[in-house]
Amino acid sequence: MIETIRVGVIGGRGYVGGELLRLLLLHPYVEISCVTSRKAAGEFVYREHPNLRKLTSLKFEDVNLSRIGDKCDVVFTAVPHGAAMDLVHELYEMGLKVIDLSADFRLKNPEAYKIWYGFEHKYPDLLEKSVYGLPELHRDEIKRAKIVANPGCMACPSILALFPLVKELDVDLFRIVVDCKEGSSAGGVEVSRSSHHPERSNVVRPYKVTGHRHTAEIEQELSAVMGKDVKISMSAHAVDMVRGVLATCHVFLRENSTIEDERVLWRIYRKYFSNEPFIRLVKEKKGIYRLPDPKAVVGTNFCDIGFEYEDRTRRIVALAAVDNLVKGAAGQAIQNMNIMCGIDETTGLMLPGLHPI
Amino acid sequence: MIETIRVGVIGGRGYVGGELLRLLLLHPYVEISCVTSRKAAGEFVYREHPNLRKLTSLKFEDVNLSRIGDKCDVVFTAVPHGAAMDLVHELYEMGLKVIDLSADFRLKNPEAYKIWYGFEHKYPDLLEKSVYGLPELHRDEIKRAKIVANPGCMACPSILALFPLVKELDVDLFRIVVDCKEGSSAGGVEVSRSSHHPERSNVVRPYKVTGHRHTAEIEQELSAVMGKDVKISMSAHAVDMVRGVLATCHVFLRENSTIEDERVLWRIYRKYFSNEPFIRLVKEKKGIYRLPDPKAVVGTNFCDIGFEYEDRTRRIVALAAVDNLVKGAAGQAIQNMNIMCGIDETTGLMLPGLHPI
Amino acid sequence: MIETIRVGVIGGRGYVGGELLRLLLLHPYVEISCVTSRKAAGEFVYREHPNLRKLTSLKFEDVNLSRIGDKCDVVFTAVPHGAAMDLVHELYEMGLKVIDLSADFRLKNPEAYKIWYGFEHKYPDLLEKSVYGLPELHRDEIKRAKIVANPGCMACPSILALFPLVKELDVDLFRIVVDCKEGSSAGGVEVSRSSHHPERSNVVRPYKVTGHRHTAEIEQELSAVMGKDVKISMSAHAVDMVRGVLATCHVFLRENSTIEDERVLWRIYRKYFSNEPFIRLVKEKKGIYRLPDPKAVVGTNFCDIGFEYEDRTRRIVALAAVDNLVKGAAGQAIQNMNIMCGIDETTGLMLPGLHPI
Amino acid sequence: MIETIRVGVIGGRGYVGGELLRLLLLHPYVEISCVTSRKAAGEFVYREHPNLRKLTSLKFEDVNLSRIGDKCDVVFTAVPHGAAMDLVHELYEMGLKVIDLSADFRLKNPEAYKIWYGFEHKYPDLLEKSVYGLPELHRDEIKRAKIVANPGCMACPSILALFPLVKELDVDLFRIVVDCKEGSSAGGVEVSRSSHHPERSNVVRPYKVTGHRHTAEIEQELSAVMGKDVKISMSAHAVDMVRGVLATCHVFLRENSTIEDERVLWRIYRKYFSNEPFIRLVKEKKGIYRLPDPKAVVGTNFCDIGFEYEDRTRRIVALAAVDNLVKGAAGQAIQNMNIMCGIDETTGLMLPGLHPI
Repeated sequence: MIETIRVGVIGGRGYVGGELLRLLLLHPYVEISCVTSRKAAGEFVYREHPNLRKLTSLKFEDVNLSRIGDKCDVVFTAVPHGAAMDLVHELYEMGLKVIDLSADFRLKNPEAYKIWYGFEHKYPDLLEKSVYGLPELHRDEIKRAKIVANPGCMACPSILALFPLVKELDVDLFRIVVDCKEGSSAGGVEVSRSSHHPERSNVVRPYKVTGHRHTAEIEQELSAVMGKDVKISMSAHAVDMVRGVLATCHVFLRENSTIEDERVLWRIYRKYFSNEPFIRLVKEKKGIYRLPDPKAVVGTNFCDIGFEYEDRTRRIVALAAVDNLVKGAAGQAIQNMNIMCGIDETTGLMLPGLHPI
Repeated sequence: MIETIRVGVIGGRGYVGGELLRLLLLHPYVEISCVTSRKAAGEFVYREHPNLRKLTSLKFEDVNLSRIGDKCDVVFTAVPHGAAMDLVHELYEMGLKVIDLSADFRLKNPEAYKIWYGFEHKYPDLLEKSVYGLPELHRDEIKRAKIVANPGCMACPSILALFPLVKELDVDLFRIVVDCKEGSSAGGVEVSRSSHHPERSNVVRPYKVTGHRHTAEIEQELSAVMGKDVKISMSAHAVDMVRGVLATCHVFLRENSTIEDERVLWRIYRKYFSNEPFIRLVKEKKGIYRLPDPKAVVGTNFCDIGFEYEDRTRRIVALAAVDNLVKGAAGQAIQNMNIMCGIDETTGLMLPGLHPI
Repeated sequence: MIETIRVGVIGGRGYVGGELLRLLLLHPYVEISCVTSRKAAGEFVYREHPNLRKLTSLKFEDVNLSRIGDKCDVVFTAVPHGAAMDLVHELYEMGLKVIDLSADFRLKNPEAYKIWYGFEHKYPDLLEKSVYGLPELHRDEIKRAKIVANPGCMACPSILALFPLVKELDVDLFRIVVDCKEGSSAGGVEVSRSSHHPERSNVVRPYKVTGHRHTAEIEQELSAVMGKDVKISMSAHAVDMVRGVLATCHVFLRENSTIEDERVLWRIYRKYFSNEPFIRLVKEKKGIYRLPDPKAVVGTNFCDIGFEYEDRTRRIVALAAVDNLVKGAAGQAIQNMNIMCGIDETTGLMLPGLHPI
Repeated sequence: MIETIRVGVIGGRGYVGGELLRLLLLHPYVEISCVTSRKAAGEFVYREHPNLRKLTSLKFEDVNLSRIGDKCDVVFTAVPHGAAMDLVHELYEMGLKVIDLSADFRLKNPEAYKIWYGFEHKYPDLLEKSVYGLPELHRDEIKRAKIVANPGCMACPSILALFPLVKELDVDLFRIVVDCKEGSSAGGVEVSRSSHHPERSNVVRPYKVTGHRHTAEIEQELSAVMGKDVKISMSAHAVDMVRGVLATCHVFLRENSTIEDERVLWRIYRKYFSNEPFIRLVKEKKGIYRLPDPKAVVGTNFCDIGFEYEDRTRRIVALAAVDNLVKGAAGQAIQNMNIMCGIDETTGLMLPGLHPI
């Protein structure tokens, strides 16, 4: 018999926090012991997350770490970058398992935080202890981890689409283009002019076309896979949808390298993903869902991956789609929790999406 | 121990068929014995319903009623109006439980089919035997039913919002306005100029502003509740979303009748709905989800109901929101199946929606 | 030869202000002498209104009424309700023609401001002098007016759809339902949780389902037309589009009154509108644009009007669509300016919309 | 005094045809002599293009080339690829000026039609005589042209963003990535499953991620500019909007080449575009419209161009946005007509877009 996992969510008012709650309520072995929000303390959770009305009578609490220590086995921290660091440190010291959904423990190199995030990391020793929470690459380390750093919502599909190619083919490691398209929920719950509906509707708005912070994670993970430097040329675009990321990855074979045809790519992806429960290879010859589209993964923990090869330009186009709030955040985090707690990785997560949506 | 329910879905390629499959796959006591589609026979189900990829290896079959008779206890018929009649008749004769998602068994009066649907009903005796599948009004009859006629997607929220008012208050029964707004999935899977994305985006397109067929169901059910004639003034509008119906019902008190304040309405709705598992009363004083909005029920079997009273015009505005494919179709149908099969009505259906979406 | 009209726009940063600028730049007889914005003073206009890039080098100025008095013949005030009152008063005293786009001069009865807007009107004498700026009802008065109160964006189509019916038919004046659907630009440029893209997308969100302020204008104008009290039962809904209002008006014939068929309605609408340059009667027997839809008027000064009659319920459904920023605000205001200045009413306004959009 | 230009539109029922009509109706020197459509012959134009209601009483005619020859000086052919060839040939033989909006005359090399379009070109001699209708590259040739081949809607912004870079910098000519995002109107007026609203909403659907036909045009034009081979790695994505294309172009400097900073890019783009009436350089330091976004050009003939430089990857990201139906089709075509007819190139085209939209 499986013991109940007592779970805390710090930062439950945001979209990632809300998605954690939705999924944790569906999880058969989880008891949500506490949900915190400074702004909404005392309020019913369903006032902020109207989808949970009649499904829970939980209320937001103020943050009280010692109470959390008493009541929880696992804590999810869903607070802004920079603000997570101290919380994670304290929870770790109290002996809890922590899954951090901010960027504060994703990068191994403390120097990288100065470059990409503009702050000095206060716990470089914890960076060593934390594990980058992508099960498809780090499953065994996650099993033993006390701190898991949940990947960025655009980093997740990009790494998944790219690492098998980088590993198995002779590609130009300095000319990898990752062109991302993302929905508005990725911007979080706080309002701004750029998220104002009249301004945010019907856009294809380039933002961070250079220097996007998720670049650092992708380069770190691919360089580790390769044992040498990989450079990622990343650009992000806001499009008119609420949930979803599509990463379109353009990869060039090096000059003297060739592949026969797309079957080579099939073999490579199958090698890495045929046993992965949340990776779906999507490459159809007909119909309208021939390649990955975020529309088909909304609400689910799947990452859909597809590809094409263009001989003329010696280019592989690898495409990966996730729901930024699920496989790109809360679902991934629960997958990590399952692994850390030694239960079946898919528990509570094998949910279909909605079609049409 | 609960026995497995062996289920067949006739017409599995459409949106309602796909939604039945999504929900049936989540149902703990259901085995999907067969899914039919003439056009897609032989294809994997996930080719038409990309959300089901990796969740089922079912294939569409051609329709073969005797095989269905052998393999199924319950059959859902999700085929066009007029085409369901014969199928339901045969399945009934074979002793199966049938839940019909077309309009073919919703109206009690065979004459009404000529007026509203333009055809002669071939099985007037079966109309008597079939039950209108709205558990909030007909739960006991559904328990014993062999044929359940699943309500129309706009009729469902309209009736639910209106019947308690009509029953408990002295309202003008000839001046009830039902102004509906609906998403594009209600139009089904077949393409047309009116569903062409460039033409269907950004619309508030009035259609059937008079003479909408669901009027017949609403009038039938409300007249039955009252024991006298009720007239519904219904108009429908297509808006730019995929799933969801909002019914805005404008109800006038008769001239010499009054109500003190909105607490009267609270009492009425609580009287009928406080034990209903899928009705949520939504009436908040703050926040942005103060009243029902289809956005909050997408993917769920909930019907959200709210109201306001305007003394100046002696008008009650009752609002009800459903997902047209769930409480407005497939979810309702499974709720009916649960009742017919004697299991907990909410089995497999107590799913949260997505926020934001 | 027509003299140049020197125009000022107070409150040029908002959406109505921006739309005034777009249309005034296209107007052959207008010179924009000044555009004010407290928040954006000193900035190029195209920084706030990216559509105007390369079309004007105007900059926002701070408000300076005496300079405006020197440089302008006509001033548009596009500031919030309550804030317009003093400005209009001063500009009037300086002898300028003023077109106010707030609600501050729309209601004739000063008491109504307490009831509907919660403030005491400081210039009841000016209310008498101002004219409600709906040319289809008040063209002659507008010609002579010094202050024109531009109608509310939902009031405008509602009044236009209703006044001919109310005037020519024996309708139930206490049971007129106006069910409005509106785009997000009507909420203005200031951000809020309710306009946050993840929350505002895919909605059909009821707001002000009773007590909407535009009710006051509609009742005022229809009561004036009739010479007796008319009561409007209005409800508004936010839908997922940026521009546009559809007013669906449900009107019941009184008990002993009848109409033969829809030709009666054709005759009535033709009587009032066949010479109106900006009213289009839309009632087709085929195609997908059979009745008014805001999609077809986006960017234009047209009000599309259509109707159906349902004998069964003795109900006329009258539908009117406008672009809330054009015929519902800035375009209407320029139409009023043209009339006040004695030039052809359609000058600068006979622009086609975009299809598809 | 400028003589009236008598214009014919062949294929007036489609979206490009409708957009030609919208813009031609606004053109001060144009008389529309005839509009053809086989399917809609005899119908009022406004039945297909509801935005033109009350603005024209034109009707569609069947195609009759000899009548067109009598009545027109210039003809726009807006028919499918392959179908234009014969029409253009005949009109040319009749001595008319032709602007073809299909792909049939865009490629100089007849062999290229076999490779990219799968047909044999019947008039290779006419390919030599026709001019690729991008005024920013071929203005002088267009002046003298009898046949102008209007550029593809994705080719247009891609070439405009890229040619100055390719010409002035030492870039890797074999690693140029063009990642395009496009609205649904680009798919034309004919319905299909992929344009069905429930399936086409909320998508980021990759299509033609390799082998897109517009690649051929872009390579042709850039190779001509350079005098040597350029290879374009193009991928297209359907996003949830009706109008607009964004081309995100990722360009790498060659290994031994450097640029100091972005001012170099400013100088290059200014060199080519500072006198171009329809190119706007968009590169702001603040606000939400810092870089090109199709939203800001909807309805206009502008091409907005912006850029960023990332030293780390030696990558320039050049972005260009157009309305696919205007600068990407009909507006471009009229700009070409103006040039061919010797009138001011901007006549009838200097229209602002809508904000917000």
